[in-house]
Amino acid sequence: MNPNSRLPIGLFDSGMGGLTVFKALARRLPGEDLLYLGDTARLPYGTKGRDTIIRYTLSAAQKLVDMGVKMLVVACNTATAAALPTLREHFAPLPVLGVVEPGAQAAAAASRNGRIVVLATEATINGGAYQQAIARVRPDAEVLVRACNLFVTLAEEGWMDGPLVEGIARRYLEGLFDAPENKAADAARLLPDTMLLGCTHYPLLQGALRQVVGPNVNIVDSAATTAEFVVQELGALRLLHPDRAASAGDATGKRQGESRFLTTDHVARFVRTGSLFLGRDMAEGEVTLVDL
Amino acid sequence: MNPNSRLPIGLFDSGMGGLTVFKALARRLPGEDLLYLGDTARLPYGTKGRDTIIRYTLSAAQKLVDMGVKMLVVACNTATAAALPTLREHFAPLPVLGVVEPGAQAAAAASRNGRIVVLATEATINGGAYQQAIARVRPDAEVLVRACNLFVTLAEEGWMDGPLVEGIARRYLEGLFDAPENKAADAARLLPDTMLLGCTHYPLLQGALRQVVGPNVNIVDSAATTAEFVVQELGALRLLHPDRAASAGDATGKRQGESRFLTTDHVARFVRTGSLFLGRDMAEGEVTLVDL
Repeated sequence: MNPNSRLPIGLFDSGMGGLTVFKALARRLPGEDLLYLGDTARLPYGTKGRDTIIRYTLSAAQKLVDMGVKMLVVACNTATAAALPTLREHFAPLPVLGVVEPGAQAAAAASRNGRIVVLATEATINGGAYQQAIARVRPDAEVLVRACNLFVTLAEEGWMDGPLVEGIARRYLEGLFDAPENKAADAARLLPDTMLLGCTHYPLLQGALRQVVGPNVNIVDSAATTAEFVVQELGALRLLHPDRAASAGDATGKRQGESRFLTTDHVARFVRTGSLFLGRDMAEGEVTLVDL
Repeated sequence: MNPNSRLPIGLFDSGMGGLTVFKALARRLPGEDLLYLGDTARLPYGTKGRDTIIRYTLSAAQKLVDMGVKMLVVACNTATAAALPTLREHFAPLPVLGVVEPGAQAAAAASRNGRIVVLATEATINGGAYQQAIARVRPDAEVLVRACNLFVTLAEEGWMDGPLVEGIARRYLEGLFDAPENKAADAARLLPDTMLLGCTHYPLLQGALRQVVGPNVNIVDSAATTAEFVVQELGALRLLHPDRAASAGDATGKRQGESRFLTTDHVARFVRTGSLFLGRDMAEGEVTLVDL
C-alpha cells in the first residue's frame, strides 16, 4: 500500500469515541483525508463477547477497505484488544494500527513509580491486552484495572461532569487511590501515579475523573500517542515508497485534508453527540448512513 | 396457528429486560413451554433508529419462528413501538403480541387524575407509541414523557438502588412531580399520580424510583398486563380451535412447562445478569448462543 496515495486514512470505532483519535489525527496531519466509520447501530462493543467483537470489527473494516483507504486505524480499544491480529492478517499488506499499544506506551512513559491504573470496558479488561502491552514496554509496572461499563453510556448521553458523574466515577475507582490512614507516608509512595483512559469514550469524562483522583495523578489517553504512531508509520512507509510527487499532503503540506463520516445508524444522533466529541458543530451533510 | 399446539410461546427482547415479562408469563401460565431470545449482541435498541430496530427485530423474530413457536411476544417496548405492525404483517397468521398496549392499559386503569408519566427509551418516546396507545384507551389523559437512556445500562450493570441510582433517576424526573411552592394545594391535584415504566429493563430500578417519587404515585409496568393479554389471546384462539386433547397445558393443566433461553452473545453474562432479572440462579446449560 502506497503511503503517498491520495486515498484517505480510515478510522473505525464502535461509535463516537474514536472521534477523540480522529481529532488528534486531524490536528497532527491536517493535509490527510480522513474517513471515519462509527458502528453506532451495534454500540457498545465493550460488553460483548470476543467472537462477536471480532466479527463486527471485520465487517466494519471491510467497509472502509472496500471504499478505499491507505491505512486503517482501529480507534476503539475494545476492537483493538480483540481483533487487531485478525485484522492485520486479513487485510495484509494494508497497515493496520490500534490504540492499545500507543496507550500503553503513553502510560508507561508518564508514570514515575510504575503503578498504573487502566480504566477500560469489560471486554478490554478481560482480554488482558493492556496488562500485556504495558508489561512489554515496562516489565516492572504494576497494573491495576477497572471495567467502567457506564462511562460509554454517560459520554454518549452527554453527561460529562457534575456530582452524579463524579459519584459514578468514585464508585468505580473505590480503593485505588486511597492511602490507608495509618502509615500514610509509606502508603502514598505506593499509590498509583498514572491513570490510563483505555477507552476512546473516556476522555470526555476527564473533568469528572480529575475531580475524583485529585491533581497529582497523571491522566493519559491514547489519542495523541496514536496520532504519533500514524505519523511514524507513514514516515516509515515513505522511506520504502519515495514517491513524494503523488503525496496527498502531510503535516508540512499545504493542502487541507477532507473529512467524511459514516455511521451505521441514526445520522441526527451522530451529529449531536459527534459535535461534543469533536468540539465543533457538525452538519448532517458530513455524515452518511451505511449498512454493514 | 393452533393455540393447543405443543410448540412454545416465543418471547423476544433486545437483551435481558424481557425476562421481567418472561417471569410474569411463567407464573401465569406454568404449563406452557417458553422460548426466550435476547439479542444481547446488538443491545441496546433504545438509542437506535427506527429502520435499524425494525431490521433487527425481524431477524430475531425469524429465528424464533424458524425454531417453531405458536405465538410471538415482543417483550421489548422499543421493538414493539417500532416494529409490531411489520411483524404482524410479516408472520401472519402467527399471533404477535407487544408490550405497549398492555402497558398503556395498565397505566390508564391505575390513574385517577389522568396525568401519567411514561419513562422509556429515546426511540420509544420519539416514536410516540405510548402517547397514542394511552390516548386510545383514555382520550382525556395527559401524558408526560421522559427518555432515560442510562437506565438500561444501570440495570444490565446490576446497579439497581442506592444514592447514585436515585440521583440519576432524580435528574431524569426533574420537574415532573414537584408542586410549585406557592399554590401547593391546587398544584398537587395537577401532579401526575401514575408512572409507567415503558421499558422492560426499568422494573429492576423500581426501588430507587419509588424513593424519588414518594409513596403516593402508582408505579406500573407492562409485565403482568402482557401476561394477561397472552392468556386472553390463547383463550380466544381456543374458541376457534377447540382441540383440547393436544393441549400442551395451560394455567389449569398439570404439566410443568419447560423454559429455554437463547442469546446472541456472551452466555456467561446472560446467566449473571439474567439471574438478577429472574430472581433465581440460572445455569449456563439453560442458555444457548445463537447467531442472527
